[in-house]
Amino acid sequence: MPLAPWRSLISRALHRNRSLVYARYFQLATVQQNGRPANRTVVFRGFWEQTNKLKIITDSRSQKFTEIQEQPWGEICWYFPKTREQFRLSGEITMVNSNNSHNDLQKARHSTWQEISDNARIQFAWAHPGEKRANPEAFSPPLPDAIVPLDNFCLLLFEPVKVDHLELTGEPQNRWLYIQNELGDWETLEVNP
Amino acid sequence: MPLAPWRSLISRALHRNRSLVYARYFQLATVQQNGRPANRTVVFRGFWEQTNKLKIITDSRSQKFTEIQEQPWGEICWYFPKTREQFRLSGEITMVNSNNSHNDLQKARHSTWQEISDNARIQFAWAHPGEKRANPEAFSPPLPDAIVPLDNFCLLLFEPVKVDHLELTGEPQNRWLYIQNELGDWETLEVNP
Repeated sequence: MPLAPWRSLISRALHRNRSLVYARYFQLATVQQNGRPANRTVVFRGFWEQTNKLKIITDSRSQKFTEIQEQPWGEICWYFPKTREQFRLSGEITMVNSNNSHNDLQKARHSTWQEISDNARIQFAWAHPGEKRANPEAFSPPLPDAIVPLDNFCLLLFEPVKVDHLELTGEPQNRWLYIQNELGDWETLEVNP
Repeated sequence: MPLAPWRSLISRALHRNRSLVYARYFQLATVQQNGRPANRTVVFRGFWEQTNKLKIITDSRSQKFTEIQEQPWGEICWYFPKTREQFRLSGEITMVNSNNSHNDLQKARHSTWQEISDNARIQFAWAHPGEKRANPEAFSPPLPDAIVPLDNFCLLLFEPVKVDHLELTGEPQNRWLYIQNELGDWETLEVNP
């Protein structure tokens, strides 16, 4: 599978916005079981090897884990403040938890765990997210193993099928759609902002 | 209706992040007719007078207009980079377009049009958003009237019923839920991050 045409645009945006640590954060929207949307900030953990899939991590105790099990479709909104451009990525999410028996996916889950910081890893040993605030001790567990992920560590692979790229700096603004057709090829369309 | 307890927290965050123009942008998630989420960056246009309702503007030719007509529920994700805090606001959206006969709402639509810049107003006279890129002339219309809004100018009033406030700066992070009960009162709950 060749790299999608929007992938280098995201790499360029990341490079040009590299002075802002939060340029690596984006908002992931999913749909709850009651049909209402959910939306939260997550950290971009890079692309999965030479694919178009974005890596995100989550705790299997979190609400989004349950939501994505029911409705794996998501939309990422990624705004880059310095270059004033936005990417909206619409796609399907593959969840890779400790039970996943697919060899390559489980390998990706392990290597992602190994790449994140101690600070990121320890949060998976904290008290259950979203529940009534626990005592301070519940937030000072022993440091988890840096090689083997905790069971509740979950890797999300987000595979876009449509990308909407808006540059606010144009006069008027520039906007392109990248849409994957049934053959897996990407079509590019310049549209009105 | 008294002001909700989270309203002053947002005012404080806006004040502390005032050096960043994009701290006034947030991501609004809605649900499409096919049950998949949509997510885009919009500009916060202030609260509607002394209420808890957030003002957003949109073009009635945009996709979100149609989406919200079908499913008025939305979730705002608002990340403040300088203070490293996030608000997730879940609520219902009231759309106020040119046909809305409610006096106060139509007044709010007019005053919002009058408050935005020429630059923001002229975009409502541009070519149809999302369609195949039009000629440059379609983006240099005469400046619209600054008093009476164009027909396709639409005011959205977002009324939260639940707010999830996360402070990343805490050690561990601090997180509170604000939930409106059936009486309209707000309950506060401290939860695990």
